[in-house]
Formats: sequence, structure tokens, C-alpha cells
Amino acid sequence: MNRSTLIAEINRKKSFLCVGLDTEISKIPAHLKDTDDPVFEFNKAIIDATRDLCVSYKPNLAFYEALGADGWRSLEKTVAYIGDSHFVIADAKRGDIGNTSRLYAEAFFNRMGADAVTVAPYMGEDSVTPFMGFPDKWVILLALTSNKGSADFQLTQQSDNHEKFFEKVLRRSQVWGSIGNLMYVVGATHPEAFKRVREIVPEHFLLVPGVGAQGGDLASICKYGLNQDCGLLVNSSRGIIYASNGLGFAERAREEAEKLQKEMAGLL
Amino acid sequence: MNRSTLIAEINRKKSFLCVGLDTEISKIPAHLKDTDDPVFEFNKAIIDATRDLCVSYKPNLAFYEALGADGWRSLEKTVAYIGDSHFVIADAKRGDIGNTSRLYAEAFFNRMGADAVTVAPYMGEDSVTPFMGFPDKWVILLALTSNKGSADFQLTQQSDNHEKFFEKVLRRSQVWGSIGNLMYVVGATHPEAFKRVREIVPEHFLLVPGVGAQGGDLASICKYGLNQDCGLLVNSSRGIIYASNGLGFAERAREEAEKLQKEMAGLL
Repeated sequence: MNRSTLIAEINRKKSFLCVGLDTEISKIPAHLKDTDDPVFEFNKAIIDATRDLCVSYKPNLAFYEALGADGWRSLEKTVAYIGDSHFVIADAKRGDIGNTSRLYAEAFFNRMGADAVTVAPYMGEDSVTPFMGFPDKWVILLALTSNKGSADFQLTQQSDNHEKFFEKVLRRSQVWGSIGNLMYVVGATHPEAFKRVREIVPEHFLLVPGVGAQGGDLASICKYGLNQDCGLLVNSSRGIIYASNGLGFAERAREEAEKLQKEMAGLL
Repeated sequence: MNRSTLIAEINRKKSFLCVGLDTEISKIPAHLKDTDDPVFEFNKAIIDATRDLCVSYKPNLAFYEALGADGWRSLEKTVAYIGDSHFVIADAKRGDIGNTSRLYAEAFFNRMGADAVTVAPYMGEDSVTPFMGFPDKWVILLALTSNKGSADFQLTQQSDNHEKFFEKVLRRSQVWGSIGNLMYVVGATHPEAFKRVREIVPEHFLLVPGVGAQGGDLASICKYGLNQDCGLLVNSSRGIIYASNGLGFAERAREEAEKLQKEMAGLL
């Protein structure tokens, strides 16, 4: 999906919601566990219930790899089921030497059909750029993550420019791609950082995890995070998909997604 | 595999060789391509030909994920075929928020049976420690990687201590684990860095990629890298497994592995 289509979908749906499909077999409602593919059946129900409220889905690879080859197949089926109507993010946090990153890119873009892959910046330019150059496909580079450990390295000060490490990542990586194939992860748990982020990358889309279960707040993010094209994809995973584990889990997921979508419509 | 067993195997075999199973379907000899599982058949032949010459195997996940669920299954079969005799490294370069890293750990350690997973440090302590605490299982943390892009962030200077970023990673992460469950990746393409690395982490094992196709040299690494327990696992992938793509590919792989093993025996 290209940038203009993504922006058009955000405006049409009045939503910049991304639903995180962190589907854990132990948390799936009991009545789905006897089906052939409980993970896919769960995802299918969540997708059917939230399709009109969100513009993006984000399966995190760990939850599928935990089930080995069967999990990988559930993921492939899920991405195919979502189809072209939504921006699909393979939250994989990959990154390796050039020829190896290229294979990851082919796996996620060409084989699986995802629109974007999250990539870790530690190994530098030649570990990131192999994910670029696929038409309408995106790198979402980790900048400032939502977890406590983000303070260990991302917030440490650098000698040149006296900038923080995540600022260096934002600054240096901009030239590797464009606003049409590069986004950044900035966690909702750092609302104070969005002002500085927008000084460095005013136009790029930001993928924002950490709303809901991790404690981030939508209005605080939007204060500095929103730009003229919206420029945000805000993810909620557990707060939506595990709103209930009973028979009505999909309806409850829809209610939670709708709360966020309505708040987003007001903020846009 | 625990540290004392690993050291005993290194001494018994006079080898600290790790064979990288970066098995790419397009590079597999033609006569294997008609089998049910060409990737596994190739790996099986390489393993049979090199088992007595190496102490470790390192499949890189990208090469298997490029084939989707089928690739994942070939990988599971490969790890099972290697068995307990060798130190198996899932070269996955993972790392995510805590509950997600825990799922990756379960996938690689409990489900697949790997001894170690490579982990990227960018997200900090709580993204790394969930991989620890599994008995006799290891984290291999990226410190100084073998690629050109390692200069982009890993070699940049920090304000505190005026240390380089990879030095900070080595220093801070030491307290997260022990010499019994934590190793570091240090690329053979930075031979000059091993002296400094050994000042910070004198006892930890180092996984050293970049010998062979990437240009690293064994003797230069060993000059400062070897410690009283050996302390090195040196990986070669393409230089061994793609020594030939004809009928005799496994014998040629053995010859290349043996060259390295003999050089290692001399250096130990």
C-alpha cells in the first residue's frame, strides 16, 4: 500500500488505528480451541469485527513462531485473509547483514504479502536498505520503543551533537529511504518525546505501540505526533483482542476498537 | 549445552568451528532439488560430512523463513537431526518487549531445541533477559557485527566514558547474565577490536562471524580473542557449505571445514 492510499483510508475511516494480532494460544476463547486452526479462527473473527474501524493490522511474529511451522501457516492465512484493504505490518524486528536481510524482505513482502516490516537499527544502513526498493513496501525502523529497557541504550547521550541515541537513529536513517517507504516506531509511553521526534522527522509516519495495556495515552501522543497527513498509526493489541475471552470476544473487541476510533475521529 | 561441556568438546575435537547453515534453495546442488525436502537433505549431508570437525551449527533463520512454513519445518528437522552433540545457535537476531521476547525464547529453546539465540540489544535489558533463565540455554548478544553498517551506530562515541556504543553494550549487558548464559557476537572483520573486547569481557565466549566470504582472518582474531577456556566460536557459512554445488558438495564442504579445524588445532 502506498502513502497516498494509506492517507486516503485514514481520512475515509476517520481512524489511524492499527490492531495488533498478538494471538497467544493460551488466551484464545475455549470454544475455538477445538477447531483445525484456532489461531486463524480467532484472527478471522477479530478481523471481521474490526475491519471498518482500523486501517492496519500488525501481527507480531513471536506469537506465531511460538507454534513453529503450524504458527507460520496460521500467520500466512491471516495475512491473506486481511487482503489488500489494510496496511499489514509484520512486526518482526528483523535486521541482519545485507544478503540475509534481503531474504527476510522477500519472505515478508513477496511470500507473505505484508506491506511493512519492523526492523532493528543496530546493524546499520546495509542491514536496513535491503528491505527498501520493493514497490509500495515499507520499513518501520525502531527508534524509541515502548518498553522500560528503551532507556538502556536509546536514551543515552552521544558525543556528536549531544543527541540521544534514538535521535541519531532518526537523523541518520532518513537518507536511507523516503517518507514513502520508511516509518519509525515511537512508543506511546514516551509522550514527551514526540515534540523532538517531529522536529527531526516532521513528515514520516510513526507507528505508535504502547497505548492501552502498556499505559500510553492517545491525546498526549497526538498533541505533537499528528502532522498534516495524520502521520500516525497507533497500535493496540491486548486491549482490543483480549477484551473478553468468552463467546462474545469479537463483539467486545469491536467495542474497544470503536472507543479508540471515535477518540481518533475527534482528534483528527 | 552448558559451558563446561562446550569447553570439553572444543578440547576433545581441537576445534572451535561453527558451521553456518545458511541454506539457500537456489544454491543447493541440482540433484537434491527433486527430493521431498531439499533444504533438509542438503543440511543432513553437510552435517554428516562435518560433525567430527565442528562443535557448533548455526542456522540463520532468514534462509528458512524465506520458504515460509515449509522452511520452518526444514529447520525444525535440521535441529532435531543435529541432536545434543553440538551447540546449536538459532541465528535469529530477535529482541522485543518482555512478554514477546519470552515467546521467542520458548519457540527457539523449548520447541525447536536450540542451545542459543542471537539477540539484538537495541531495546535494552527487558528485551534480552527473557531469553535467560532457561537451564543450559544462551543469549548471544550482538556487540560488533561483521558488516559495513556496523560503523553507523556500533562505533559511534558515547558521552559517558567516551566509549563506543558496542563497548557500552558489552559493559552494561554483563550484569544481565553470566559467563554461563551470555555470549557476544564480534565480527572477524574487526580484528583490531578484539583487544578492547577482551578488556571488557575477558571470560565470555564470543561468536565470531565473518571468516571466509566476508574476509576475516582466523589468526588475527585469535591473537587477542582466545582466552584460557578458548572463549571463541568461529563461524563459517558460505565458505564451507557452498564450496561446491556438484555431486561431491559434502566432501568439498568437509575439506573446507577440515582446513579451518587444522588451523584451529594449531592455534589452541
